[in-house]
Amino acid sequence: MTLTLVGLGLGAIQDITLRGLEAIKAADRVFLEIYTSALIDSSREELESFFGKPVIEADRISVEDQAEHIIQEARDKHVVLLVAGDPLSATTHCDLCMRAEHAGVQVDVIHNASIINAIGRTGLQLYRFGEVVSIPLFEKNWTPDSFYDKIAKNRRANLHTLCLLDIKVKERSVENLMANRMIFEPPRYMTVNVAIEQIQHVDAAKHEVDASTRAFGVARLGSKTAQIVAGTLEQLKSVDFGAPLHSLVICAPELHDIEEQYYQHYHCEKGRAQSQPKHST
Amino acid sequence: MTLTLVGLGLGAIQDITLRGLEAIKAADRVFLEIYTSALIDSSREELESFFGKPVIEADRISVEDQAEHIIQEARDKHVVLLVAGDPLSATTHCDLCMRAEHAGVQVDVIHNASIINAIGRTGLQLYRFGEVVSIPLFEKNWTPDSFYDKIAKNRRANLHTLCLLDIKVKERSVENLMANRMIFEPPRYMTVNVAIEQIQHVDAAKHEVDASTRAFGVARLGSKTAQIVAGTLEQLKSVDFGAPLHSLVICAPELHDIEEQYYQHYHCEKGRAQSQPKHST
Repeated sequence: MTLTLVGLGLGAIQDITLRGLEAIKAADRVFLEIYTSALIDSSREELESFFGKPVIEADRISVEDQAEHIIQEARDKHVVLLVAGDPLSATTHCDLCMRAEHAGVQVDVIHNASIINAIGRTGLQLYRFGEVVSIPLFEKNWTPDSFYDKIAKNRRANLHTLCLLDIKVKERSVENLMANRMIFEPPRYMTVNVAIEQIQHVDAAKHEVDASTRAFGVARLGSKTAQIVAGTLEQLKSVDFGAPLHSLVICAPELHDIEEQYYQHYHCEKGRAQSQPKHST
Repeated sequence: MTLTLVGLGLGAIQDITLRGLEAIKAADRVFLEIYTSALIDSSREELESFFGKPVIEADRISVEDQAEHIIQEARDKHVVLLVAGDPLSATTHCDLCMRAEHAGVQVDVIHNASIINAIGRTGLQLYRFGEVVSIPLFEKNWTPDSFYDKIAKNRRANLHTLCLLDIKVKERSVENLMANRMIFEPPRYMTVNVAIEQIQHVDAAKHEVDASTRAFGVARLGSKTAQIVAGTLEQLKSVDFGAPLHSLVICAPELHDIEEQYYQHYHCEKGRAQSQPKHST
């Protein structure tokens, strides 16, 4: 039958499209992906009560390793997979679509806003962004720094960099993994502050993205409690961005005229009142 | 009062979000921007009948030069500006937001899908895209080629390039401009084929993006009649992509495994049946 990937957009339930809602109403089975992103202004329970049908959480284990299960269900049912933001921003969902099609399942994608276009709310021009970067949470003996080189490369080309910050959901400790116990660690979401610390950790050796580099920290973009604050990395390091999800934009060395106006508009030193956008996004 | 920019998404009326619909229902005045993008599966008249209120077309003249008029209206009314795709993908709307805020108007933005994230439907990974490029329609004595250099730069960094193709709406001939006559030329939308011709025109002198370069041509992405075709520039030059809007992706020199599978999946030489996506997007 069908597998329909439905983007939920960035904030509350009301960010779903009419077309997405129709697909859910027609579905026999509804999964909610919680591995690559997270809902901001809603929960699985709220989705269930709004849609009037059960919503099954699909974590990494079921989306990646057990994608086969979803595809099997879609062979003779109408299956919907809900994804926060846009469904195809994550590689894993492109892979799922391809595998479903190979299995003879009809695939449909209902797009929605994602951080990749909503970051335009900073006032930075979308066409001036270079490669998107994911910053992984450093572990004790694991501090991969390729994200830093990509930021530096974008800056040399006078481009902005959108940094997506790591999400750890349904991770297991080494002990639990080895014992094959399904006991999960609490979810962890990287903050803007930790992202900046990690950039500065790498910068100590590479010297390309120093403390005076201009940036925008954003939190819960697209939701009612959205927060956008501009400043140098040094300034943003001590700003409290509150609850997840956070993202960080490292600016190009030069800002265009409107970008410069927005940088000033959102600047942290305008005081707390201005550090919140005057309008919701 | 308020100015709310509402993204309409990529295809039909049903691509609007519930939040967007609420804003329109509460609006005293609804404008539709027709300068930076175009509706695919709907028209102004359909929007009017769906929303049950008048929708006023805002072309370049009213959005850029007469933005003041919209802002004036928003001083004491709830004004909505509808934009195909996402509202902030165009510089002109960031500028409008800033000017409205300076005038004391509360600004809200309701995001939606845009070509910038929906291009993920090609199977190319969004994080592997470099700077976005706009290709302008060449005129007789005006053949600007900076777009080519950006494509070449992205390719040297092993990144894909999304090329947005020119739209000419409500343009006036030099004669009509000089006589200050409000007589407009018919709208023109650049096709994938013309975009490739212009790239090859520049390539004759620069030799960086030759006929064997791999690419995806896409048309009406996000709509029911969406078309995605992969092939070399030489192969795509003779593919008929039908009605607007068209976009073009110039691939990075290397494709990752899933990207390679999608390239084969959408390849033009798989025959007409496969050149249409098996699934709607």
